[in-house]
Amino acid sequence: MSDTVDFRVEKDLLGERPVPAAAYYGVQTLRALENFSISGIPLKHFPDLVVALAMVKRACAGANRDLGKLEEEQHRAIAQACDELVGGRHHEHFCVDMIQGGAGTSTNMNANEVIANRGLEILGHNRGDYDVLHPNIHVNMSQSTNDVYPTALRLAMVFGLRELTVAAGELQEALAEKGREFSSVLKMGRTQLQDAVPMSLGQEFSAFATNIGEEVARLNEMAELLTEVNLGGTAIGTGLNTEADYRELAIGHLRRISGVPVKAAADLVEATSDMGAFVLLSGMLKRCAIKLSKICNDLRLLSSGPRAGLNEINLPQKQPGSSIMPGKVNPVIPEAVNQVAFTVIGNDTAITMAAEAGQLQLNVMEPLIGFKLLESIRYLGAAMGSLQRDCIQGITANEEVCRGYLEQSIGLVTALNPYLGYGKTSAIAQKALATGRSVLELVIEENLMSREQLEALLSPEAMLAPATRSLDLPV
Amino acid sequence: MSDTVDFRVEKDLLGERPVPAAAYYGVQTLRALENFSISGIPLKHFPDLVVALAMVKRACAGANRDLGKLEEEQHRAIAQACDELVGGRHHEHFCVDMIQGGAGTSTNMNANEVIANRGLEILGHNRGDYDVLHPNIHVNMSQSTNDVYPTALRLAMVFGLRELTVAAGELQEALAEKGREFSSVLKMGRTQLQDAVPMSLGQEFSAFATNIGEEVARLNEMAELLTEVNLGGTAIGTGLNTEADYRELAIGHLRRISGVPVKAAADLVEATSDMGAFVLLSGMLKRCAIKLSKICNDLRLLSSGPRAGLNEINLPQKQPGSSIMPGKVNPVIPEAVNQVAFTVIGNDTAITMAAEAGQLQLNVMEPLIGFKLLESIRYLGAAMGSLQRDCIQGITANEEVCRGYLEQSIGLVTALNPYLGYGKTSAIAQKALATGRSVLELVIEENLMSREQLEALLSPEAMLAPATRSLDLPV
Amino acid sequence: MSDTVDFRVEKDLLGERPVPAAAYYGVQTLRALENFSISGIPLKHFPDLVVALAMVKRACAGANRDLGKLEEEQHRAIAQACDELVGGRHHEHFCVDMIQGGAGTSTNMNANEVIANRGLEILGHNRGDYDVLHPNIHVNMSQSTNDVYPTALRLAMVFGLRELTVAAGELQEALAEKGREFSSVLKMGRTQLQDAVPMSLGQEFSAFATNIGEEVARLNEMAELLTEVNLGGTAIGTGLNTEADYRELAIGHLRRISGVPVKAAADLVEATSDMGAFVLLSGMLKRCAIKLSKICNDLRLLSSGPRAGLNEINLPQKQPGSSIMPGKVNPVIPEAVNQVAFTVIGNDTAITMAAEAGQLQLNVMEPLIGFKLLESIRYLGAAMGSLQRDCIQGITANEEVCRGYLEQSIGLVTALNPYLGYGKTSAIAQKALATGRSVLELVIEENLMSREQLEALLSPEAMLAPATRSLDLPV
Amino acid sequence: MSDTVDFRVEKDLLGERPVPAAAYYGVQTLRALENFSISGIPLKHFPDLVVALAMVKRACAGANRDLGKLEEEQHRAIAQACDELVGGRHHEHFCVDMIQGGAGTSTNMNANEVIANRGLEILGHNRGDYDVLHPNIHVNMSQSTNDVYPTALRLAMVFGLRELTVAAGELQEALAEKGREFSSVLKMGRTQLQDAVPMSLGQEFSAFATNIGEEVARLNEMAELLTEVNLGGTAIGTGLNTEADYRELAIGHLRRISGVPVKAAADLVEATSDMGAFVLLSGMLKRCAIKLSKICNDLRLLSSGPRAGLNEINLPQKQPGSSIMPGKVNPVIPEAVNQVAFTVIGNDTAITMAAEAGQLQLNVMEPLIGFKLLESIRYLGAAMGSLQRDCIQGITANEEVCRGYLEQSIGLVTALNPYLGYGKTSAIAQKALATGRSVLELVIEENLMSREQLEALLSPEAMLAPATRSLDLPV
Repeated sequence: MSDTVDFRVEKDLLGERPVPAAAYYGVQTLRALENFSISGIPLKHFPDLVVALAMVKRACAGANRDLGKLEEEQHRAIAQACDELVGGRHHEHFCVDMIQGGAGTSTNMNANEVIANRGLEILGHNRGDYDVLHPNIHVNMSQSTNDVYPTALRLAMVFGLRELTVAAGELQEALAEKGREFSSVLKMGRTQLQDAVPMSLGQEFSAFATNIGEEVARLNEMAELLTEVNLGGTAIGTGLNTEADYRELAIGHLRRISGVPVKAAADLVEATSDMGAFVLLSGMLKRCAIKLSKICNDLRLLSSGPRAGLNEINLPQKQPGSSIMPGKVNPVIPEAVNQVAFTVIGNDTAITMAAEAGQLQLNVMEPLIGFKLLESIRYLGAAMGSLQRDCIQGITANEEVCRGYLEQSIGLVTALNPYLGYGKTSAIAQKALATGRSVLELVIEENLMSREQLEALLSPEAMLAPATRSLDLPV
Repeated sequence: MSDTVDFRVEKDLLGERPVPAAAYYGVQTLRALENFSISGIPLKHFPDLVVALAMVKRACAGANRDLGKLEEEQHRAIAQACDELVGGRHHEHFCVDMIQGGAGTSTNMNANEVIANRGLEILGHNRGDYDVLHPNIHVNMSQSTNDVYPTALRLAMVFGLRELTVAAGELQEALAEKGREFSSVLKMGRTQLQDAVPMSLGQEFSAFATNIGEEVARLNEMAELLTEVNLGGTAIGTGLNTEADYRELAIGHLRRISGVPVKAAADLVEATSDMGAFVLLSGMLKRCAIKLSKICNDLRLLSSGPRAGLNEINLPQKQPGSSIMPGKVNPVIPEAVNQVAFTVIGNDTAITMAAEAGQLQLNVMEPLIGFKLLESIRYLGAAMGSLQRDCIQGITANEEVCRGYLEQSIGLVTALNPYLGYGKTSAIAQKALATGRSVLELVIEENLMSREQLEALLSPEAMLAPATRSLDLPV
Repeated sequence: MSDTVDFRVEKDLLGERPVPAAAYYGVQTLRALENFSISGIPLKHFPDLVVALAMVKRACAGANRDLGKLEEEQHRAIAQACDELVGGRHHEHFCVDMIQGGAGTSTNMNANEVIANRGLEILGHNRGDYDVLHPNIHVNMSQSTNDVYPTALRLAMVFGLRELTVAAGELQEALAEKGREFSSVLKMGRTQLQDAVPMSLGQEFSAFATNIGEEVARLNEMAELLTEVNLGGTAIGTGLNTEADYRELAIGHLRRISGVPVKAAADLVEATSDMGAFVLLSGMLKRCAIKLSKICNDLRLLSSGPRAGLNEINLPQKQPGSSIMPGKVNPVIPEAVNQVAFTVIGNDTAITMAAEAGQLQLNVMEPLIGFKLLESIRYLGAAMGSLQRDCIQGITANEEVCRGYLEQSIGLVTALNPYLGYGKTSAIAQKALATGRSVLELVIEENLMSREQLEALLSPEAMLAPATRSLDLPV
Repeated sequence: MSDTVDFRVEKDLLGERPVPAAAYYGVQTLRALENFSISGIPLKHFPDLVVALAMVKRACAGANRDLGKLEEEQHRAIAQACDELVGGRHHEHFCVDMIQGGAGTSTNMNANEVIANRGLEILGHNRGDYDVLHPNIHVNMSQSTNDVYPTALRLAMVFGLRELTVAAGELQEALAEKGREFSSVLKMGRTQLQDAVPMSLGQEFSAFATNIGEEVARLNEMAELLTEVNLGGTAIGTGLNTEADYRELAIGHLRRISGVPVKAAADLVEATSDMGAFVLLSGMLKRCAIKLSKICNDLRLLSSGPRAGLNEINLPQKQPGSSIMPGKVNPVIPEAVNQVAFTVIGNDTAITMAAEAGQLQLNVMEPLIGFKLLESIRYLGAAMGSLQRDCIQGITANEEVCRGYLEQSIGLVTALNPYLGYGKTSAIAQKALATGRSVLELVIEENLMSREQLEALLSPEAMLAPATRSLDLPV
C-alpha cells in the first residue's frame, strides 16, 4: 500500500503535484479544488453541464480530425470518453466548485483532464501519460475556455429549459383542468382586496392557466437565443490559432451530436464577452418566478381560514401544520414555491451584477452566471412540478362559501345597474351597507325584481361575459 | 436689448462661453447643464443638500481665514452668501441635474460659482469679476470636490433623517394609540393565513407600533455614522495642498455652523472612497420600507371586504374607488405606501451597484448614491406622514366581526387544551370541522364546560398572555 | 374678487369640495392631489402617457357612439378634447403624482375630468356642468380604470420605445463608424485584465456596435408584446356592463387613432391582472442598461491615464475635471451613463416587487410599474443620445500607445505558436518576462524570424481572424 | 430480511406511514422529505443550525423540568440527546431541504423527532415508542415552531458571525501588514481612473485594512441585535399554553447552554413576525460584500498586465490561466471573491422579498431568510479566508513601475502648485502633455527647481500628508 500506488505526479506551469491515482482529473483540477472551496456545490451537481461539455469536446475533436490535426486514434479515444460522459458515467470526477475564478478555465480543464485520462485508458495507456493524449494539446485543440465554456453553458441551459417547459406545460394543463372543473362555481371577483364584480372560480383558474401557458412559448424563444454560440472564436473571438474551416466544422458536429440547432454568432469578438442572452433569460425566469409567486399568494389567500379567512378553496393536506394547534394544516407547497420564486429573483440580481462586471474582451464572472441560471432553471422546474402534482391537482372548491359571498355582496349592484338604473342601485347599495342585509333580499323585498329574474341575472351566462342582450328583463 | 446685457462671457480650461447675466452660476455650471440632461431633477429639488453645501463652504472659508489664507473681506462675502443659502435664498440657481458624471464636481462648482457671484455682489462687484473672488481659488480654497461633496451629502442626509425620525415617531405613537383603543377587541390571530390562536386587535396594532418604534433608535444610530467626514482630505485623502491645522479648524467651524457633531474620519484615504455608511444607511431605509410594506399589506388584508373579505377594520375613506362600481372605496393610502416601499427597495439596488463600482481612490458614482438616498429619505418621510395622518388615525374596528371569527374558530381548542385535555379537544375540533358548528356550542352542548366558564376562559386576561393559573376551572 | 369667481363646487361619493375654477380637472383629481404628495413628479412629466390616455378615451367614445350609447354631440366634444391633448395642449392639468394608490383610478379620473370639462367648454357649457357631459357616465362609459389605464400605459411605452430604438440605432451607427475608423489600429486584447492576444481597436468598437445593435431588434419585439391590450374587460376582465361588440369596436378605433397595431388579449381576466409584459420589458431595459454600463466601463478603462493608465483612446473633453488638479479632465459622459444604468437596474427591482404584489383580479401597484418603466425608457434614451453625441463621435485613438502594448506584449507568443512551436515560444515568453525585454526583440536577436516575417505575421490579416494559411512563413 | 426489520410504522394527523427503522427522524420529517425536494441542500449542511436547535430544545426541556412539567428521566434523555447533537453527532438525520413551506415546522419536527428517538434509545426504549417520550408532547413542550425556530436561527447566525469576524480580522491584519510593507512605495493616486495626486502603495493597502476593519465592529453590533429572541411566545407571541415563569427560565437555560447572552424581546407579538434584525444583518453582509468586491476590483486593476496593464503589483500565482496562451496567469482568487460578493448581494434581494412577504402574525418565508443568511455568512467567511491566505499575503510591489508612473505623471504639478504658483505649473502641465515629456524633466530643464529640491518635494513626508511647511523651498 505504498504512496506510488495511490498517487501519480503531474506537472503544470506552476510545478509538480501528486494527484490521486484513481482520479481521472489531473493537476489543474487539483489546484482548482484547493483554490475554490466556497459553495460546496461541484460541477457534477448539474449533469446537463457535464454532458454539454462532453458534447462540445467531442465536436471540436471531430473538426480537428476532419482537418487532419488530430490522429484517428486520438479522436476515437476522445469521442468514446465523451460518449461515456454523455451517457452519465464518470460525472463524479467533475468536482470543481461552481463558484470559481478564472472565467471557467478550471471547468474546461476539469473536462480536458477527465477526457484525456479516460481516453488514455481506452487506448490502453496509464492515466497521466499525456504524451499520447494531452488535456491541452489534444483534447483542447483549437479551443479556448473562452469559446468552449460559454458554448457548453448555453447547451446545458437549452437542455434545462426543455425540462422546464415540459413542467410549465403540465402545470398549465392542471390549472386549465381546474378551470373547467370550477366553471360553474360563481364567486365575487376582488380588486384591491375589495369586493368587485362576479366571476367564476373557473375563470380564476383558467386565468392562471393562461398566465403559465404564456411562459411556455416565451421560454422556447429564450432557448433559441441560446443556440447562437461563439465556438471557434478561441481566446477573444478573433479565432487565433484556428484554421479557416474549423469553426463551421465544429459547429456542424455539435449540431449533430447534441440535436440542438446551434449556430455561429455573427460577431465573435462581441459574442465572447456578451452576456446579453443570459441576462434576458434571467429576466424571463424572473418573470416565471413572479407569476408563480402571484399564483401561490392567491392560492394561499383563497384557501385562508378555515373559519377566519376566505375559505373559497381547499388545498390538499400535505403534512400536519403545527405541534401546538390541533388540526391546523398549512399551505406548505405554495409557501415553498414562493421561496423558490424569491430565490430566482435573488439570482437575477446576482446575475445582473456579474453581467455588468464584464471588462474588455471577456466576462470573468461567467461561472456565477452559469451557476445561478442553471440553479434557477432547476428550482423553477422542481417548483412547478411540485405545485402541479402536490397542490393544484387536489384542489377542491367550497362552492357554498363562494356563492355566499356573491349573494351577500354589495358589488352585485354593478350587475343590476343596466336593469335598475344607477339611482336605484345606489340606494340599494347604501341600504345594504347600513343594515348589513343582502342586496338580493332588499331587491326582492322592495319588489324591484322577482327571485326568478334575479336568478336569471346571476346565471353564468349573464355574469361572466359582455352582455348578449338575450336576457329579457323588465327595467 | 443687446446681447451684452443678457449674457456675460466666462472662461475655463476648455474656453469661453456666454453665461446668462442674471445667473449666479458660471461657466462650469453651464457646461454641466449641457452635459447632463437626464433625470430633470435639479439639485434645488433637495434643499437640504444646498444648505449643507453652503455650510461646508462657510466652514472651509472660516478655516482659511483663521490660517490667514483668505482675506477678511473675501471671508465676509463668502460667509454672507452662504448664510443666505442656508436661509433658503438663491436655491433656484442650483440647477445641475442630480444625475451627473464627474463625481460631484459639477455640484461643487455650482456651489462655488453661486457663492462667488453672490459674494461679488455683496462686495459691490459685478458677477464674473473673479479676480476679486474666484470660485476655485477662493471659494474652493483648500478643498476638493472629493472631500467637500461627500461631507455635504452626509450633512444633508443627517438633516433628512431628523425629519424622518420625527415622522416615524409620530407614526409609532398613532399606532400605539390604536393599540390602546383596540386593547379589548378580541380576534383570531393568523399564521400562514390560517386560523391560529386568539389575540386582541390592540396587540396587533401595538406590535406595529413596536415595529416602527425600533426604527427611530436605529435611524438615529445611522445618522451618527454619517457624522464621520473626510473634510480636509482634498483629492484622495492625503490632504495635499492643505496646511496641517486646516482640517481641524474646518471641521470645528462646520460643527458650530451646522449644529451637527461632525468629526474627522481616522483614515482619510479610506474615507474618500468608502461608501460603507451610505450602503448601510440604504440597507436600514430598506428595512423601514419592508416594515411599512408589511404593515400596509396587513391593513389592506384586515380591511378587505366589506362582504367577501376579512372586514375586521375600516380604513378612513379618502376618495371614490371606482367609476364603474357604485360605493367601492379602496385602501389608497396603504397602497401608495407600498409603492414607496418598493421604490426605496429599488433605490437600494441602484445604490448597491453604484457603491460596488467605486475604483481605486474614489467612487465616481457618488452623485447617484446621494440622489437615491435623499430620495428614499424624503419618500419614506412623506409616506409615514401620510399613513399616520390619512389612515391610521381614522381606523375603526368591527368588533362584532372580530369576535365572530373568534367564536366560530376551531383554533379556540388550543386554549381549551390545558383544561379539557388533548383527547377531548381533538374530538371537539373534528366535530366542529365536520358539522360547521362552533367549538363553543359543542362544548356547552356536551356539558364539558358551562357558558360562564367559557367566558372566563375567553376573557382577555386568559387569552392574551401566559397562564397565571388564577382561573379555577374544572377539568 | 369673491370666492365664487375662483372656485366651483363639485361633489362625489364622499361629499362636496371647492375646485379651482380655472382647473379642467375636478373633485376626484383634487382628492388625489391631497392624498398623494410623494414623488413630486406629476403625470404631465410623461407626455406620452397623457397622449395615450387621450387616444384610449377617444377610441372608447367612438365605440360608444357606434353602439348608440353616446350622443353625437357628446362624442364630438370628447373627441375634440382628446385631439387637443394628443396635440400637446392642456397637459398642465394632469397633475396627480405618479406614485398613487387606487391602481390608476386617479389617473383615469384626472383624464375623465379634464376631457369632460374641456368638452363642456367646447359645447358652450361651464366647467362642472356634468349633466351634459359627465366624467364617469360619458367620458368613462363602458370603461373601468382596470382596462383603460393599462391600455394607455402600454401605448405610452410603445411610443417611448420607438424613440429609444431610434437612439439605440444612432448609437450603434456611431460605434460602427468608429469601428471602421479604427480598423487598422492594432492593440492587445485583454481577458481578465491580463494581456491576451492581438486584435484591432476597430474590432473592439465594432463589437460594441453589434452589442447595441442587438437591442434594437429585441426592443422592437418587446414593443410588440405591449400591443396586446385588455380594453373592453372593464373591472376584472369579464366585460361586465359592456355590450358584445364594444371591445372590437373600441380596439379598432384605437388602432386607427394611435397607429399602433393593438389587439385584444385572448383571456381578459388573465390580462387584467397580468404584469408579464411589463416584467419582461423591464428585464430587457435592464439588459440595455447592463450593456451600456459595460461599454462605459470599457471606455473609461481604455481612456484611463493619461500617464498612469492605459491611454489607448481619448474621449472628447466636456468640462474641467477638478478644481484642485490643473489640467485634469474626466470621462463625465460615460460616468453619467453608468449611473443611468444603475437607476434602470434599481427600477427593475422596484418593478419586480410591484409585479409580485398583485393579488387576485388586479395588480394595484401598476402605477409604480408604469412610472418606473416610463422613467427607465426615458433615461436610457437620454443616455444613449448623450453617449453617442457627446462622447463616441469625438473619440480618437492613440495608435502609438496601442501598438506599443502589442509589441511589448508577451501575449504575442501565442500568435507565434503555430510557426515556432510550443517549446520555443515558451522559452521566449519566459525570457521576456524575466528580462523585461520584448518578444519581438528576442525573436530577432535569436534569429528565429526576420523582422520582415514578424511584420507579416503581425499584419491585420494574420492577427485578426482565423489563419488562412496564406502566410508562407519558415518554421 | 423482512420489511418489519427495515421499517417502523408511525402515525400523524394525516395517517400512518412506514419510516426507515434506522432513522432517528419520524413520520413528519418523512412527509417533509417527500414534500420539499428543491434545493438539494439539507439542514445538516449548516451544522451551526443543528447545534442551535439542540441548544434551544435542551433549554426548553430544562425550563419544563424546573416547572415540574417534564419528568427527570424525560429531561435526562432529551438533555443527553441534545448534548450529542451539540457535540456533532447524528447530524446526518437532519435531512429536510433548507427550502421548505410551513415556516420551519418541518425543521422543528425534524429536531423533535431526532431528539425523541435518540432519547428513547438512551432510556432503553425502541425508536417510535412515543408514549414514553413524544416529539410533540415532551420534546416540543411549551414550544411552537414560531418561537423555537427563529430563536435557533438567530443563535446559529451568532455562531457564524463569530467565525466571520475572525476571518475579517485576519484579513484586516494581512492588509495592514501590506500597508506597512509598502509604506515607502510611492505611486500615483487615481480618481475616476485618471491620474490624480501622489500617494504611497502602503496608504492604499492601509485604506483597505481600515475598510475591512470597520466591518468587524459593525458585524459584532449585528450579532448583538440577534440575541433578542422570542422564545416563550409560542404560536403568535401571546405565550398561550405556557406558564408565567417559563419564558424566563427557558431563556436563562439557553444563555448558560449556548454562552450567548440571549434575552427576551419586549413585545413578543411583534418579535414573532418581525424580520427586522435579519434584514439589517443582510444589509450589513451586503456592505461587506460590496467592500470585498471593490477591493478585489482594485487588486485586479493594479495587477493588470503584465505589459499592457497597470502592473503595479503582483498577485501570487495560483494556477495556469490559459490552455491557449502560454504563461498567462489570472487573478483567480479575487475573481472568485467578486462572485461571492454578487451571490451575497443576490441573497439580499431574496431576503428582502421574503421579509416583505410576511403576513399578519408570522412570516412564513423565514426558512428562506435563514437559509440565505447562513449561506451568505459562510460564503463571506470562506472568501475572506481565501483572499487573505491565497492572495493578500503573497502580494509583491513593482516599485519601479509605481515610481515610473509618478515621475511621468502630469498630476505631479498639483504638488508643485504651492511652490511654483498656479501659472507656472499650468504652463508646465500643458508643455508636458503636448510633448510627452515628464514634468520633472521640464522643471529641471527650465531651472525652476533643482533635482535635490524636487527630490525633497517628492519625499514621502511631503507628498502623503498635509503640508508641515518644514520644506524650505525657494519659490
